[in-house]
Formats: sequence, C-alpha cells, structure tokens
Amino acid sequence: MEKESSVTPWEVKGEVDYARLLREFGISPIKELPPQLKDEFLFRRGVIFAQRDLKQILSAIGSKKPFVMMTGMMPTGKFHIGHILVAKQMMLFQKLGAKLYIAVADIEAYLARTQSLETSRQIAINDYILNYIALGLNKENCEIYFQSSRSKNSEKANSFYRLQALLSRYVTFNEFKAIYGDISPGKMSAALLQAADMLHPQLPEFEGQIPVVVPVGIDQDPHLRLARDLSQRIKDYKFVQLSSTYNIFLPGLSGGKMSASDPSSYIALTDTEKEVEKKIKKYAFSGGKDTIAEHRKLGGNPDIDVCFQYLNLLFEEDDKKLASIYNNYKSGKMLSSELKDYTIKKINSFLKEHQKKREEAKKRLGEFIKLN
Amino acid sequence: MEKESSVTPWEVKGEVDYARLLREFGISPIKELPPQLKDEFLFRRGVIFAQRDLKQILSAIGSKKPFVMMTGMMPTGKFHIGHILVAKQMMLFQKLGAKLYIAVADIEAYLARTQSLETSRQIAINDYILNYIALGLNKENCEIYFQSSRSKNSEKANSFYRLQALLSRYVTFNEFKAIYGDISPGKMSAALLQAADMLHPQLPEFEGQIPVVVPVGIDQDPHLRLARDLSQRIKDYKFVQLSSTYNIFLPGLSGGKMSASDPSSYIALTDTEKEVEKKIKKYAFSGGKDTIAEHRKLGGNPDIDVCFQYLNLLFEEDDKKLASIYNNYKSGKMLSSELKDYTIKKINSFLKEHQKKREEAKKRLGEFIKLN
Repeated sequence: MEKESSVTPWEVKGEVDYARLLREFGISPIKELPPQLKDEFLFRRGVIFAQRDLKQILSAIGSKKPFVMMTGMMPTGKFHIGHILVAKQMMLFQKLGAKLYIAVADIEAYLARTQSLETSRQIAINDYILNYIALGLNKENCEIYFQSSRSKNSEKANSFYRLQALLSRYVTFNEFKAIYGDISPGKMSAALLQAADMLHPQLPEFEGQIPVVVPVGIDQDPHLRLARDLSQRIKDYKFVQLSSTYNIFLPGLSGGKMSASDPSSYIALTDTEKEVEKKIKKYAFSGGKDTIAEHRKLGGNPDIDVCFQYLNLLFEEDDKKLASIYNNYKSGKMLSSELKDYTIKKINSFLKEHQKKREEAKKRLGEFIKLN
Repeated sequence: MEKESSVTPWEVKGEVDYARLLREFGISPIKELPPQLKDEFLFRRGVIFAQRDLKQILSAIGSKKPFVMMTGMMPTGKFHIGHILVAKQMMLFQKLGAKLYIAVADIEAYLARTQSLETSRQIAINDYILNYIALGLNKENCEIYFQSSRSKNSEKANSFYRLQALLSRYVTFNEFKAIYGDISPGKMSAALLQAADMLHPQLPEFEGQIPVVVPVGIDQDPHLRLARDLSQRIKDYKFVQLSSTYNIFLPGLSGGKMSASDPSSYIALTDTEKEVEKKIKKYAFSGGKDTIAEHRKLGGNPDIDVCFQYLNLLFEEDDKKLASIYNNYKSGKMLSSELKDYTIKKINSFLKEHQKKREEAKKRLGEFIKLN
C-alpha cells in the first residue's frame, strides 16, 4: 500500500521509500569499506547507507592525502537528536583527515523560509555551533561561515560569490523544474548558492582541486545533482567531481521525519529529563502489542519501534546489548514500557553529559566563529 | 510607416520611437532645470532628454549635499564615439558633486554574451577606463569596480553580494518575463546583480541612504524599473528611490544604433584620421539630395543627417556655428560633401587631441583601478 510521498530539499512528505529514491537518483549502496571504517558506528549501524563517488575519498583517507568535507546547517528551529547524525559524520571525517567547511545557510533560510539573517545568526551560534562544539568538533581544520558573509578575506569572499554568478550560465529553467519541481527566483538563487557552497572549496583561493565529500539526507540530493552537473559544464575552473554520502533520517517520535517545526516530533538537545520522559512515553511510536498478554505471547516489532531506532542509530553503542534488546523485544520478553524506560535512561544520560559540555562550550564559541 | 522595433537591455532592433518608449515606461521629459544646468551642453543640446525622480538630485546639487552617480560599462567591443555621451555625463555629475560608482559589467558580459572575465578585464582597463581618464575622469570621488570582484574590503564585498541574494526573494518569474521578455537563469542572475549595482551605494558599508542617479540609454530602463521596485519591497534596508536620466542614442553611421559589434556603424576612439575620413564618406547617412543641382535648389535635411547629429550631440560646441550649419544645409547653401568634410575635420581634431591624452592616461591607470 503506497502512501503519497514527496521528497524535495524544501519538503519531505509521507513515507520515505529509500530503495526507490536510490534507484531514481542513481545513488549506490555502500560496499567494500576498509576495515577501520567498516567498524565505525555510523557505517556498521547503517546510518550512512549510500554514496556517490566515495572511492576517491576512501583513497585520500588511505593515502593520507588532503580532502574536504563540505556540509551545512539550515538554522531554522531547534537542534534536535536527528541533527546529531550529521554532527557525528563531521567528527568522523574530521578524525579521518578531512578539512571541514560548514556553511550556515542563512541566505537559504531567508529565501526559502523568510527567516531574517539575524535570527539565523543567533540560532546558528547559540544552538547549532554550540552543540557541534559540545559533540566534539575540533577547531583545527574547520571553517564555519555564513552564506551571507563568506569571509573576512576579500579574495575569498569575491571568488565565492563570483562562482555562484558564473554557474547561473550553465543551467536552464527546465532543468531547475526537473530537479526541484516548483521553483521561484529566490529558490533558484538559493540552489545556485548551495552549488557554490559545495564547489568553492576547490577554487584556487581556497583549497584548490581536491576531493570533496558532502554528507546529506536523501532529500538534499537535488542540490548535489545540480552541483555535480554544473561542475563539469563550467570550463573556467577544473573540479574533481563531488562525492556524497547519504544518511538515513532519524525517525520522528511518531514516525515520519523528525522536524524542527513540530516539537512533538523531536527531542531537542536542550530538553529536560522530564520533557524527554514525557515525550517518549506520550509520542514515541511503539512496535509493541496492545496488551501485555498479547505482547508476551507474540512479541514486539523492533524494526518499526521508534525507541529501538533511537538506540540503534544513536544511543546504544554496545552491539551485544543492542542485539539482546532486539531479541528480547521481538520474543516478548521485553515490554514496550521497559524499552521506553531504557531509552529514556540512555537519552537522559547522554543529555546530562551533553548539556554540561554545552555550558562549557559557550566559552569556546569565539574559537570557532567570529562573534560581534 | 512603422518598422518592427524592439528595445530590451540585450537588444535594440529597428527605429527607436522615443515618445512611445517614454509613455510606455512612465518616464518624464526634463523641465525646470536650474540655470547652470540648463546651459550645460548635455542639457541644452538635448542629449539628456528625460528623467525619473531627478528632483532629489537637483536638490542635492543645489544644497551641496552628497549624492552618487552610479553607472557602468559592458566591456564588449571597442569604445566608440557613442560611449562619449555616457562619459560626458559622468564628468558633468562628478563636477556637480557626485561620487561616481562605475561598474565593469564583466559578470553580465559572461552571462549574456559568454565573454570571459579576463577578456572583459583587458577591454575595460585598456580601452574603456583609459578613455574615461583621457576624457577627464577625476580620480577623486570615483570608485571603479568589477562585478566579479567587488572590493578589496571584505565587508563591502560580502554586503554587495548579500544584497543581490536577498533581492531574489522579492521578484517572480512572471515579473521577469514582463520586464525582460525572454529570460534565462543567467540573464536573471545578471539582472539581479545589476539591481545590486544600482542599490548597493546606499548600503551601510558604502555611502548609506543617499540619492543615487543612474544615467542610462532607454534600452537599459528595464534594469532600472526592476531595481526601483525591489528597493521598495525589501525591508532589510531603507533605500532612497533611485533617480535616472535618459540620454539619446548617438546614431550609427548609417542610422540605427551605433553598435560595438558592427565596425561600419561606429567611429572608435582609436581610429586613424584616414579611417575616420573613409567611414564618414562611405557610410555616414546623408540628409542631402541626390544631385548638387537639386540640393542647391531644395536644400538638405539636417534633422536626419548623421554628420549633423554628430556635430549637434558631440563635436560642435559653438551654438551659433551649429545654427549656421543647420540653416546653410537646410537652404542648400552647404553641400553634403562640405558638411562631411567639416565633420571629419572636427572629429579628427578631437581624436588627435584625445589620442595624445589617451597615451598620457596609460601612466595614470593605476590611480583608478588596481592593476596586477
């Protein structure tokens, strides 16, 4: 039974059919990872599940050659546990030798969400960047910038925006429509700026020709397809083709995508213990049966249980422990209430530690971004 | 008898019907100039023949308050005598107290004419700017910049391109189509950049809220209409509404618009005496009769004679002399060959002096623009 679904960079509606999206967009599953990567949490748990041209990045990692991870944040709404998946990828690739470029998409928020630049700035600094630091972002090899104010270095600033302008020659309206569906001048401008975001690390004023990997949710892939096409059409620069990795969406509390615009769908990194407990108990979609007796007899379904997904994708690092939860829940030995209690405990233990680190990170904000 | 005509920023086709264009675009004729302006060559000869919101500029001139003249060059093809009309306006307004902002539209040339940035740079510096200097451009109160590289000051660079991006939120595709006719992403991007060109002098990083006058040919008016509309829609900044003046096109040698892409239509500022003589004799459209006898009897028509227009709009400063040429030609006392000879003499005398100044200007280029 198919639900109506739509996945574009500006909207994710309905159920996400990953297999269909991969087929449609020409993205490949991940196989043949070097051993040290295969064992990494994000890969072994399938958080990063697909890629395009990842080979050149693996090769740069293997031979300790420089490469870039380019990523960004759209600072609209609260930083929630779904955002941790992207943050973890930043830290992982930074550890593997990437220089990080992190764009604050304040222009996109202005154009596509009509949010003021100042609001974006406040949310980016006091929520997103603060959380990144608390989650372990290293200030070395890390450049955070605002789309509206690329650099304090004028040559870098000029060359970034110049690239955006030049790229507009190499795309037609029909292509925009094919890639994005509905399009307006503002969204077109935002899309070209995103292409410049992804490609500019390779400009001579930045790192020069170099492999760049962009970790995205599948909904952001249109931006990547556009940037990849444009990079090969413009002859004023030579670009190594962009690589990309795809992470699954952390499900929202009641299923669907976790969305910063719906507080009952997410757990924020600033939520209190009580709020976490309440949200999980009230909203978290359960794979359990309607009655305890039935559950004991038939077992639950961990594959559709939101708490189990949270443990699998984020909070239970111990594979054996996770497997035993899976089996116990499936057999009916573990009840939904027990799974929820365990998940609440894990999340709150993480948040307690994280919120302490977040307080400490406030002092270090200035090391990552110029504050006024 | 109406010829098919079309006037857009990227093409002027057929005869230009100024009266119709003024009506269509809502531009007003010039009346009530202060005496010192009325006597200026450009106004008394009708070179500048129409305006929008010129009052606030006249008032700034009258009270010696700061104002900006924003103008630009599209460095495709040779600098010809038609370009002198714009240059003269720059010098006039500079003399009247304006700060000049001069954009080299290298991004527009890249997007709308597929000319490389480097070619634009060479033509801009070694032809256009050189001629401006030779024609009397003052380095004080004068800022020349490339669209592709707005400023060596990063705050200025960031804020200029930021404005272009933000403006894209306030326009629809249908408006673009209504204003420009045919439109592509590249031309849309160029149009938004032009709007930023015209509006950015008023940003806090530049002059702040201040009257800005943009002198244009009527074909560039769509850019102005767009910039004027956008300036009142965007609420992130407060803009004084743009003023504009309209100059007539210097006719090409055989009529129509003088076009840098058709060498038989123009006299370049680097043409030799011989070339000028040959072009005028061979191509200049004459208002005279077919035979000398007929001309002596019926007289010529100075109003459609291209040489007479060149004298009127550019090369004959002496009003009495011009009037006597007009009358003598009209009565048949002056022959077409005599009018051509006189015009050749005037142009060559101007060019001889100009080319000397042009050589001297080469040493001063670095005072106007950063050379590598």
